[in-house]
Amino acid sequence: MTQEIKTDRSLTDLGEFGLIDLIARKVRPSSVVHIGIGDDAAAFHWQPHCLALATTDMLVEGVHFDLSFCDPFRLGRKALAVNLSDIAAMGGRPRSFLLSLAIPNEFSVDFINDFSSGLLEIAEEFGVTLIGGDTCVSRSGLVIGITLYGEQEEQKVTQRGTARPGESIFVTGYLGDSALGLKLLQRGLRQGEVIDRHLDPTPRVHEGLALAEAGLTCSMIDISDGLLSDLGHITGKSAMGARLHLDKIPLSREYSAHFGSESQERYLLALGGGEDYELLFTAPAYRKCEIEMLFRKLGTPVSEIGEITSVPGIRLFSAEGETLQGIAPGYDHFLSRKGNRS
Amino acid sequence: MTQEIKTDRSLTDLGEFGLIDLIARKVRPSSVVHIGIGDDAAAFHWQPHCLALATTDMLVEGVHFDLSFCDPFRLGRKALAVNLSDIAAMGGRPRSFLLSLAIPNEFSVDFINDFSSGLLEIAEEFGVTLIGGDTCVSRSGLVIGITLYGEQEEQKVTQRGTARPGESIFVTGYLGDSALGLKLLQRGLRQGEVIDRHLDPTPRVHEGLALAEAGLTCSMIDISDGLLSDLGHITGKSAMGARLHLDKIPLSREYSAHFGSESQERYLLALGGGEDYELLFTAPAYRKCEIEMLFRKLGTPVSEIGEITSVPGIRLFSAEGETLQGIAPGYDHFLSRKGNRS
Repeated sequence: MTQEIKTDRSLTDLGEFGLIDLIARKVRPSSVVHIGIGDDAAAFHWQPHCLALATTDMLVEGVHFDLSFCDPFRLGRKALAVNLSDIAAMGGRPRSFLLSLAIPNEFSVDFINDFSSGLLEIAEEFGVTLIGGDTCVSRSGLVIGITLYGEQEEQKVTQRGTARPGESIFVTGYLGDSALGLKLLQRGLRQGEVIDRHLDPTPRVHEGLALAEAGLTCSMIDISDGLLSDLGHITGKSAMGARLHLDKIPLSREYSAHFGSESQERYLLALGGGEDYELLFTAPAYRKCEIEMLFRKLGTPVSEIGEITSVPGIRLFSAEGETLQGIAPGYDHFLSRKGNRS
Repeated sequence: MTQEIKTDRSLTDLGEFGLIDLIARKVRPSSVVHIGIGDDAAAFHWQPHCLALATTDMLVEGVHFDLSFCDPFRLGRKALAVNLSDIAAMGGRPRSFLLSLAIPNEFSVDFINDFSSGLLEIAEEFGVTLIGGDTCVSRSGLVIGITLYGEQEEQKVTQRGTARPGESIFVTGYLGDSALGLKLLQRGLRQGEVIDRHLDPTPRVHEGLALAEAGLTCSMIDISDGLLSDLGHITGKSAMGARLHLDKIPLSREYSAHFGSESQERYLLALGGGEDYELLFTAPAYRKCEIEMLFRKLGTPVSEIGEITSVPGIRLFSAEGETLQGIAPGYDHFLSRKGNRS
């Protein structure tokens, strides 16, 4: 963890260049970077024979995060984590990123200090370098924009639209924890494992990269909008359908304990809650053993939850083989208001 | 210009994926792009032996633009132009970009349609491709985030901190028009050349690239904060100083006519107004003829306005050789409030 510099100055005392310098001082030098923070653009070396991968996410106060329960350190971690998750879903190796901040003038230097410490801590964990960005004042709420680059050989990049009938559907980790964590935060709770999973998700960078390097996936996406919605992106883009087995969906002990094993609603958040940042991928059924061995080595849970079909649409099945209907879909920013998500 | 699709639907009717599709439909295919809009990350091919250049800018409603006088089409053009200007200042060739939009729910589809038409029109003019992005709802005002990539050979990239004593200082175009245009807009005027220069600036991409390819510049920056402030970045980073000759600063006919040739204040906006998006560069004095020939071919004005000195600080001289003092510095987002800028 980088060293904390505590102060109670406001951003007005610090100025724009003082703010940039505060962040820049925490960035470790990297051999990839030719020109870093402080010029008109960053310049960096590229691996030959690799595709460049680029993803961007904008996090808006009051839409994606609520500062009444989101501390700046973990907000910094999460802001980069959601982008790392996108590069992971392509099977990519994340390399460097740009940061844009629109900050209300009344924010304290401490806030930005803690935010950037969290951001740069997770950056170091995953070996990515901050190479530049933009700061400005905001009249209404904090806005965080991150653009992350990664790289991967062309034939190893994993896309959404390449699933084929008969492939098994796998998912990493447990689903629904983050959405349950958000609900508990909104009810006033502040501690617990599912709350941590919401405030500080783990991007599956090592898992995505290992799958791509081993050539084990046929299609892949990260779950940000919810299992059904994101599986819908895979089936939609692939012009396929899917069968999902409800009893195979991985639920954590905390999540199951909260709902009880008989509750009908206990699958709702796991299916549609969003912000899991787990990887959802398809692979030929015969490669299941290889996949399980790979994940045992990584120390990450993996579950087979269904199959790709040539019939369009996603059908849900109970343990008894019955078809289930009427489950809520994923998140659409302009159609619904399900609270926070990234 | 791309074809307009007029409609009076709201974003709520359209939904997030409808919105993305509306923009994606206007994007021309490009051979550089391997995976474009619609996956977890964009993937694109990179030129071997080139440095990657990346720049990002966040434009916030009420800070960088005022929708009471900024139409969506030209806002789209300007949002990309300010990023193109940064790549130009590195001597780079712009290639592709990501777009993030946080949009209030009450915005019309027409607004986004016009905005993206303007954005993609200037993208086509400068040969860059939209490869991906992010859209979300905003609770308070429009936020536009753009990240633009470019490329250039390592030895041709032009930086800020490489000016040396005795080099001449050059600037493209005319200074102060944009700041004067903003003042007139704030007073209620809506038409005129300086207003156009504020709402729809021309990024000096061809000029920056031509200078870099010919190896004519020793240091370069684009003027976004104002001449004095941005020259201060060159001298500061180079650990140098500068002499500026006030009577050599290029002023347009419209700008001069507004202030009158005797007015003391007529240099204030040219020196500190910002948002000119002209290139400021240094070069050995003996290469002046080559530079002038190059700019004659490009059809762009260029002016020699001073010299780099080994004595720190920027000193201003009148036509009579007197030292001038007390001129306002450039823009700092957190220290001052000079109205709009990008």
